[in-house]
Amino acid sequence: MSVSLPLKHITLIGVGLIGGSFVLDLKRLGLVERVAGVDLSRDNLERALERKVIDEAFTEISEASIGNADLVLIATPVSTLPQICRAIKPFLRQDTLVSDVGSTKQSALAAFESYLPEFLPNCIATHPIAGSDRHGALAAQFGLYQDKKLIITPHGREQAGGIERVEALWQAVGAKTFRMSAAEHDAIFAAVSHLPHLLAFAFVHEMFDHPDGQRFLQFAASGFRDFTRIASSHPAIWTDICMANKNSLLGLLSGVEAQLAVLRDMLEKGDTAALYRYFEEAKNTRDEWLKGQ
Amino acid sequence: MSVSLPLKHITLIGVGLIGGSFVLDLKRLGLVERVAGVDLSRDNLERALERKVIDEAFTEISEASIGNADLVLIATPVSTLPQICRAIKPFLRQDTLVSDVGSTKQSALAAFESYLPEFLPNCIATHPIAGSDRHGALAAQFGLYQDKKLIITPHGREQAGGIERVEALWQAVGAKTFRMSAAEHDAIFAAVSHLPHLLAFAFVHEMFDHPDGQRFLQFAASGFRDFTRIASSHPAIWTDICMANKNSLLGLLSGVEAQLAVLRDMLEKGDTAALYRYFEEAKNTRDEWLKGQ
Repeated sequence: MSVSLPLKHITLIGVGLIGGSFVLDLKRLGLVERVAGVDLSRDNLERALERKVIDEAFTEISEASIGNADLVLIATPVSTLPQICRAIKPFLRQDTLVSDVGSTKQSALAAFESYLPEFLPNCIATHPIAGSDRHGALAAQFGLYQDKKLIITPHGREQAGGIERVEALWQAVGAKTFRMSAAEHDAIFAAVSHLPHLLAFAFVHEMFDHPDGQRFLQFAASGFRDFTRIASSHPAIWTDICMANKNSLLGLLSGVEAQLAVLRDMLEKGDTAALYRYFEEAKNTRDEWLKGQ
Repeated sequence: MSVSLPLKHITLIGVGLIGGSFVLDLKRLGLVERVAGVDLSRDNLERALERKVIDEAFTEISEASIGNADLVLIATPVSTLPQICRAIKPFLRQDTLVSDVGSTKQSALAAFESYLPEFLPNCIATHPIAGSDRHGALAAQFGLYQDKKLIITPHGREQAGGIERVEALWQAVGAKTFRMSAAEHDAIFAAVSHLPHLLAFAFVHEMFDHPDGQRFLQFAASGFRDFTRIASSHPAIWTDICMANKNSLLGLLSGVEAQLAVLRDMLEKGDTAALYRYFEEAKNTRDEWLKGQ
């Protein structure tokens, strides 16, 4: 049997910005009756209950937390997906949808295929593009997904209507939905998200390592602030993402190393015309992108 | 004779965000009677006149544009400072203060020493820390310098009270003033400003060069937007800054290359614990900095 909108019961595993904001909107829209939250942190669960992000709280995956769910939404760091799939398996019904919101999708499909093979038709891999350096239940907010993108990466064995059902929920909270292969997804987000995070962490780490770094930082201003905002992101989440997508990332890192070698050469030679052209090409690329937003 | 506050006449060479915002506030505070603007762009001068950033407009350095100035403020790309010093020299009075607002200060002192040796006691090198990716007369705004930093890099031969007079003007528009050597200044701003600009340009240029770059950019979101904001900066201004400060910059670039090599190694080895610690150190450094702002 398929689940139809509205849902009776969602179980959210990992009650933070991404999953919490999703269920807040679904509740406001009357598209879900009841949300159970599963989280390792009792403190975080308390806050989620207070803010009415969730209606009941569990610190464990169990019949009580999973058995009633029409949709189990997994919103934890990507490295935990295999163990969560294994843990929820005994409590899934034949019609329970399982969906994740992780930032790397080849690893998500691998986890579903390895640990929930009998339930693969129920598994829908998604990635909402609404990151933030904020996290935890207190970061959950209404309207987070309005006009944001939601990527679905089908594995091809989804049950009839399964993808559409999950898509409809995301569309209801304002997202524009896209479908693509997990490999393409991972190549794209390595480039526009994972690589900038890596570079921001690397740049700030250079300040951390430099003997005069603390003195330097006293004079850092708005350019530094914006450039490094993503270096305030959650280290565990980003360790997972970078490791899960390291193949795409390492290729792009070679590209950046080549860019830096070109820049070094221009600076050493004092090739002002070439440096100007390089900066101009980058500026134009970024300005064109911004116009399209 | 020394100039005392308020000033009768300022000539601003280069009518953009930095100089324009400064004189807007000085006029509002009644600290200057009349501002002349010198700019290569008639169009920019027209806009500056309309917005009352300046009271009279000139496209050339001449007796008419410079001769009446109590303060000549040079706010053009840093590479132009030598030629501007040479050009203004015939029109300076014995008591005319000359000040620049460029982002590299060793190059500024070198220009003053080489091209205005007789007027060196009149020359005060400054750097207001209030950059933006916006530029031109239309970017000029009231209050830009409130609670911003203003660095003065003395050459040591300033006339008595000269530094204090320029400091007082910047303090009047809200800036906190600091003094340091030009070499220290350049090391600091290579780290917290010039290097991030170089990295942001390099990252966007990687998208420009990559065969799938345009596809990637369709899915870029807020992390990308903030990380690359400074890659929309003016290419000519930043070519000049990077070339003028290339020695500091090349040293720091080696540091970043070393950081990327460390990251590559952790990713290739799958050393999750080390990558987590690295990200955490960077996040803590950035979060501590942010708390101090």
